[in-house]
Amino acid sequence: MRAEPLDAEAIVSATEEVLRRHGPDKATVVDVARLLGVSHGSVYRHFPSKAALREAVTRRWLDRVREDLAAAAGDPATAPADRLRGLLVTVFAAKWAKARQDPELFATFQVLAAEHSAVSSAHIAFLLDRIRAVVVDGIADGAFAGGDPEVIARAVLNATSRFHDPRHVAEWGSPEVEAESEGVISLIVDGIRAR
Amino acid sequence: MRAEPLDAEAIVSATEEVLRRHGPDKATVVDVARLLGVSHGSVYRHFPSKAALREAVTRRWLDRVREDLAAAAGDPATAPADRLRGLLVTVFAAKWAKARQDPELFATFQVLAAEHSAVSSAHIAFLLDRIRAVVVDGIADGAFAGGDPEVIARAVLNATSRFHDPRHVAEWGSPEVEAESEGVISLIVDGIRAR
Repeated sequence: MRAEPLDAEAIVSATEEVLRRHGPDKATVVDVARLLGVSHGSVYRHFPSKAALREAVTRRWLDRVREDLAAAAGDPATAPADRLRGLLVTVFAAKWAKARQDPELFATFQVLAAEHSAVSSAHIAFLLDRIRAVVVDGIADGAFAGGDPEVIARAVLNATSRFHDPRHVAEWGSPEVEAESEGVISLIVDGIRAR
Repeated sequence: MRAEPLDAEAIVSATEEVLRRHGPDKATVVDVARLLGVSHGSVYRHFPSKAALREAVTRRWLDRVREDLAAAAGDPATAPADRLRGLLVTVFAAKWAKARQDPELFATFQVLAAEHSAVSSAHIAFLLDRIRAVVVDGIADGAFAGGDPEVIARAVLNATSRFHDPRHVAEWGSPEVEAESEGVISLIVDGIRAR
């Protein structure tokens, strides 16, 4: 049995480890408790259900994706079209890398995305917000055609679902995925530019 | 026991009926034979496996979708941008209607699409071909910017995955799906037009 006090962070780390070993379907709270050397009651005191634990793991995992994207909105001195392109390339690359490096945690994220969980919705809102910021700057700058930045940002995110939505993970291993994403990015950037 | 000779078409119709009742996971060749009043050996003489039967059903089902789309490439006298818009709206509406009206057959199509079956690939090739034809006309006409029509058609299909790819069926019931698809179509049509 462990001596140090059990905190939420340690439970989330142990759950990540259990998910990596067993996958989202088979991992249980008992596995997490066993890895930590505590009773499952101790885990339940921090997280009332397996679902809550899964949400906490995905939230921390998406926080890391978010850090990868922190710099991706780019230098405001860069042309808005290049910033939009850079942002999309970075979002796709981050998702593809996570899916490849951590397939079991990615599968957990897929489960939550399919359930439209709060964690998954917050991640979509974060991506929309980054895209919207570039669109607002591009319209102000005159580089982008006018329009409602909210509607445009949503259209950009929807038009690129194939490259960031976890439902498409099976295609991300294809040798063509990068060229295909380039084709869609070019179409979008051309669609958004001022005429 | 049935008197008339058993043909492939009758087996496919019976399989559709069985799939509608039981769904793709539970439907068996024995169910199909029972509905037809024949031995399962008689079914196997026409279709060597459950997979072959599932392909045949999906092929016929997609042929019907294809008929719905036959007129959708539109009048060649119409502006290419309007033809492209009309084609995409028709493709999405046909998929959404099929998913709603025939959820069990749609689920069968989803299984085949996930397996990249020949039937599913042929359907993608058909959609690409229709889009490419409009793109070729639009470039010849001067209404669309130049480029490789193959690459452009693929980008259009990929940018609209959310609205025609069976992996996204769960979203097609959303009250926003039509407005969201309009946003993506506008972005694409603007991206493809000559400057």
